[in-house]
Amino acid sequence: MNPVVPRVGIGTDIHAFAAAGSGRELWLAGLLWEGEVGLEGHSDADVVAHAACNALFSAAGLGDLGQHFGTGRPEWAGASGVTLLTEACRIVREAGFEIGNVAVQVVGTRPKVGRRRAEAEARMSEVVGAPVSISGATTDGLGFPGREEGVLGIATALVYPR
Amino acid sequence: MNPVVPRVGIGTDIHAFAAAGSGRELWLAGLLWEGEVGLEGHSDADVVAHAACNALFSAAGLGDLGQHFGTGRPEWAGASGVTLLTEACRIVREAGFEIGNVAVQVVGTRPKVGRRRAEAEARMSEVVGAPVSISGATTDGLGFPGREEGVLGIATALVYPR
Amino acid sequence: MNPVVPRVGIGTDIHAFAAAGSGRELWLAGLLWEGEVGLEGHSDADVVAHAACNALFSAAGLGDLGQHFGTGRPEWAGASGVTLLTEACRIVREAGFEIGNVAVQVVGTRPKVGRRRAEAEARMSEVVGAPVSISGATTDGLGFPGREEGVLGIATALVYPR
Repeated sequence: MNPVVPRVGIGTDIHAFAAAGSGRELWLAGLLWEGEVGLEGHSDADVVAHAACNALFSAAGLGDLGQHFGTGRPEWAGASGVTLLTEACRIVREAGFEIGNVAVQVVGTRPKVGRRRAEAEARMSEVVGAPVSISGATTDGLGFPGREEGVLGIATALVYPR
Repeated sequence: MNPVVPRVGIGTDIHAFAAAGSGRELWLAGLLWEGEVGLEGHSDADVVAHAACNALFSAAGLGDLGQHFGTGRPEWAGASGVTLLTEACRIVREAGFEIGNVAVQVVGTRPKVGRRRAEAEARMSEVVGAPVSISGATTDGLGFPGREEGVLGIATALVYPR
Repeated sequence: MNPVVPRVGIGTDIHAFAAAGSGRELWLAGLLWEGEVGLEGHSDADVVAHAACNALFSAAGLGDLGQHFGTGRPEWAGASGVTLLTEACRIVREAGFEIGNVAVQVVGTRPKVGRRRAEAEARMSEVVGAPVSISGATTDGLGFPGREEGVLGIATALVYPR
């Protein structure tokens, strides 16, 4: 048997595109994507950071974004994805886990995350203090991402007890 | 190299909401959710237990729910999610694997799994004999969960050879 | 702490069904599924092989299918899923990782992957040089897979540094 058995988790986050001309900025992976249509949300709607939070909480058995940062916790209202992810990592480590890695796939037609992948991964990895990979996929026109209604972030994470 | 390399798996399960007034009960994570609209299915439609089964079979390379408990196996017709998950864990262990953990996310607008998370995780962890985490997410109104047509359970699992 | 901490990744791939009578063949998991309606795509639209590539790149932090084999790399245009997966595994290993396992779930109404599971797993495992599990799930009629518009491959993978 392994001296230490790691744990895996899974998390999603979905936001709808804002109406054209709304002036919403697009924030993804802690970066501002200038010239792109933004995503709706009370927060910055950063589906990469949010999905990463959910996957980390899931791996550690610590609930989800809604429990930690939802309407019952008004002190987090409007907090950026980076702020939430920083706090999520603190909570996970405080519960006795080390973070192995986080992997996020962005499913949608835009933005093309590949064109800023190195920058996005560096930003998220710095926030998490462990490797965060970011990749992209489209859906061949199918489903809500294919209809350009919104973007899905889907993530997995590996943690292990300290 | 690790003395023992773990294996990961992925599994989904989706059920549609029953028609209003159908009297179907909602069963999720082995719990009865009173006052909630039930999910359709020949079984109890427990998407948490079913997604966990699929993730465990996937990690161990042992097929899926349909193969083990589908129409070709009438002895399992109508079995509860807890019964199927108990048997899935037995099959996985019999094949020579230990179960590290299972993580399930419930994607949909209702029920709010967070309000009974501790109870749901305790029930599922007892059935599996390893930590099972349960979290929730919504979809910002998008896709079939956003239209309140049904609920998605999406799970990952880690197993390792004994 | 583990002497070697593994890394996990996640990847999806989606293709739409070709129009009836289009003559497109269905390729899945490196196998020709005779008598089945094919999936559209510039490539062979093998969602199992493609999702496996994406999960492996995701785990290793090496980007995605689009980056390695997309329109910017015309030398891969029209390459089969098996060819792409072979190359993806080479890239992952060249970057210093061993592949632990890959698990793919095929979400859709057809084909029934269970009827050729052993053959599909043997083919994919041979290509990857590590265990690849393949499972199936339906969606209770919901979403694009339930409307039989296309098929989703969703995969996770575990790699570890050599």
